Amino acid sequence: MDRMEVLKALAHPVRVEFLEWMKEPERHFADQAHPLSMGVCANQFEKRCGLSQSTVSAHLATLEKAGLVRINRVGQWAFYHRDEDKITAFLEELRSTL
Amino acid sequence: MDRMEVLKALAHPVRVEFLEWMKEPERHFADQAHPLSMGVCANQFEKRCGLSQSTVSAHLATLEKAGLVRINRVGQWAFYHRDEDKITAFLEELRSTL
Repeated sequence: MDRMEVLKALAHPVRVEFLEWMKEPERHFADQAHPLSMGVCANQFEKRCGLSQSTVSAHLATLEKAGLVRINRVGQWAFYHRDEDKITAFLEELRSTL
Repeated sequence: MDRMEVLKALAHPVRVEFLEWMKEPERHFADQAHPLSMGVCANQFEKRCGLSQSTVSAHLATLEKAGLVRINRVGQWAFYHRDEDKITAFLEELRSTL
């Protein structure tokens, strides 16, 4: 996990919002057809934020590259969920550095 | 304090290093002529990191704009120190958001 990569990933309000939504998927993505235990489908973010598919994809890819989310690929679908261990590790490392 | 501004300020290793050095000024800036209680003079950062005056100034300005450091101006000199309250507040806010 590259701390600079994570900080850059967090330095955009949309990406922070995506992470916040994924904390409570039942609240924010209740109309997803697939079970939320699989993760949140990319198109659910599109619906909720109103941004284009390519913009949403780029934000999710940045979060994934930083290690903040993980992808669960099922057929043509990509489901996302937070990587809680990585998020916690990042916060702890940041606190001890600063 | 704008969280995005702080995250962007932290997303550069040199700026994080400056903040780390300022945690222990006696260790890292022992040869400063002025008392370290005034803060760390900009030219001390230049000496230590080997970057140009303008680059160091830009990094310090970014940290100051983000609220992570404060400037103590004395005549022609600018002395910097960490804003511990802001740093703590940022870490707490980030933890509660993520």
